[in-house]
Amino acid sequence: MKLIRYGELNREKPAIVIDGAFYDTSALGEDYNERFFETDGLSRLKAFVELNKEKLERIPENSRLGSPVARPSKIVCTGLNYADHAEEMEKPIPTEPIIFMKSTTALMGPNDDIIIPRNSEKTDWEVELAFVIGKKARYVEEAEAMDYVAGYCLHNDVSEREYQFERGGTWDKGKGCDTFAPIGPYLVTKDEIEDVNAMRLWLKLNGETMQDSTTANFIFKIPHLVSYMSQFITLLPGDIISTGSPAGVGYGLTPPVYLKSGDVLEMGIDGLGTSKQRVKRYEETL
Amino acid sequence: MKLIRYGELNREKPAIVIDGAFYDTSALGEDYNERFFETDGLSRLKAFVELNKEKLERIPENSRLGSPVARPSKIVCTGLNYADHAEEMEKPIPTEPIIFMKSTTALMGPNDDIIIPRNSEKTDWEVELAFVIGKKARYVEEAEAMDYVAGYCLHNDVSEREYQFERGGTWDKGKGCDTFAPIGPYLVTKDEIEDVNAMRLWLKLNGETMQDSTTANFIFKIPHLVSYMSQFITLLPGDIISTGSPAGVGYGLTPPVYLKSGDVLEMGIDGLGTSKQRVKRYEETL
Repeated sequence: MKLIRYGELNREKPAIVIDGAFYDTSALGEDYNERFFETDGLSRLKAFVELNKEKLERIPENSRLGSPVARPSKIVCTGLNYADHAEEMEKPIPTEPIIFMKSTTALMGPNDDIIIPRNSEKTDWEVELAFVIGKKARYVEEAEAMDYVAGYCLHNDVSEREYQFERGGTWDKGKGCDTFAPIGPYLVTKDEIEDVNAMRLWLKLNGETMQDSTTANFIFKIPHLVSYMSQFITLLPGDIISTGSPAGVGYGLTPPVYLKSGDVLEMGIDGLGTSKQRVKRYEETL
Repeated sequence: MKLIRYGELNREKPAIVIDGAFYDTSALGEDYNERFFETDGLSRLKAFVELNKEKLERIPENSRLGSPVARPSKIVCTGLNYADHAEEMEKPIPTEPIIFMKSTTALMGPNDDIIIPRNSEKTDWEVELAFVIGKKARYVEEAEAMDYVAGYCLHNDVSEREYQFERGGTWDKGKGCDTFAPIGPYLVTKDEIEDVNAMRLWLKLNGETMQDSTTANFIFKIPHLVSYMSQFITLLPGDIISTGSPAGVGYGLTPPVYLKSGDVLEMGIDGLGTSKQRVKRYEETL
């Protein structure tokens, strides 16, 4: 299944995509949130859709989309999980996963505007494959790890490099700004993806390809990430976990290139759809 | 007011402390969560308590306490905010606040057991003053920052030093383990604290004083922390923000001292009550 959430920001309704058409699933009476995933909502949704296939209300495909997962307990990201990206960031290739958290207030729809923070000069892009946790994960063995994954989605791990690297301490200052986590369009359930380790992912800035790689280049694959993270932090149903970005971010260019007002980012991952964000400065939103 | 939440883990009910006695406030129909703080629940609670003072049900003072705030959107912590602690951690005194996030799955009651993670050898303590956000904070000026603070509580920012410093990347691996954020007993509303910059805080390990300092030693005071953090990350009502720990943690001793099964931690802050945690190993909980 391909799950979406549509409508006004913070008032999104659940829906589903069938053969490219969008259908409202509000009648199931559930949002795609922690409780939904915790109680095997995906099975209920599947049964509901099968039973009501003829009756579902179609909604316009140009509806605004929100994050396909309602606010999760956390967004955990992986740093430097592609060797070529570690190199362009001038960092050693990690010997174990680097993890960090992104404030959930950064979450937004896949095609909403990215807002450059006040006075920021170094806002950058990172196309990533993210996955969604399907059940509570604590001390999970790698062999069982995929049982804890509900599905996948496209994520732009927007990052402010001055805040991340030049303001002291951890990376959190540069990762959790408002609008820095466009997620979606879809949450694609696990069964629909044949090989998550062979998916092309790409990103264009104003039509020019900046990132073009494949998840075959992961340093640490998803089962290892689930198992590893769960040794430290309990992952809850609905949590969004991002797997890191390949080379081609603005920071890695000579000279570096950062986002400016009016820029357009487009990105996609095979089977997970595409997203498009226009860039504005915070000052323009006042 | 002094707010508490009591009862079984994850099924806590709201209550209030009046002259040392505990009274259930479930009849107000609200938990102390994001929505409560967002909609000025403190004023409703005050009115409710005044109106129903004679009718409130008293509950035993030995009830199990949960975190006085129901699961927040995030827990944001300050690193190295006391000069003597920066020194014992062998880190420079920060020129701007160091911030990091603690997974909300770490949250627990003030007197629950601390669980040393599997195979962990370096679990450490950090008594801290935490505050709770009362309204959404984004680009807040320092002069207005205290308007965004609802109240204060005692926090033990439990930390695994190997995970924090020796496993690569950010501090998050060592900060977000289950049981690593005992909060409470109370959320004490702002009006009850005369001077938040002159509060003694202390921690004892098995009866021996390890930390004994005062918030007069903050490097960055609360208004600065609110304003500073809100430049990067939107703070939501109910979010818990911790202000950092003074000297006296186990890592800073020669040789270092870390928690072991059977240890007892007691701690307190003037006006915010005391808490007590027994220490167990994860392996003992299976």
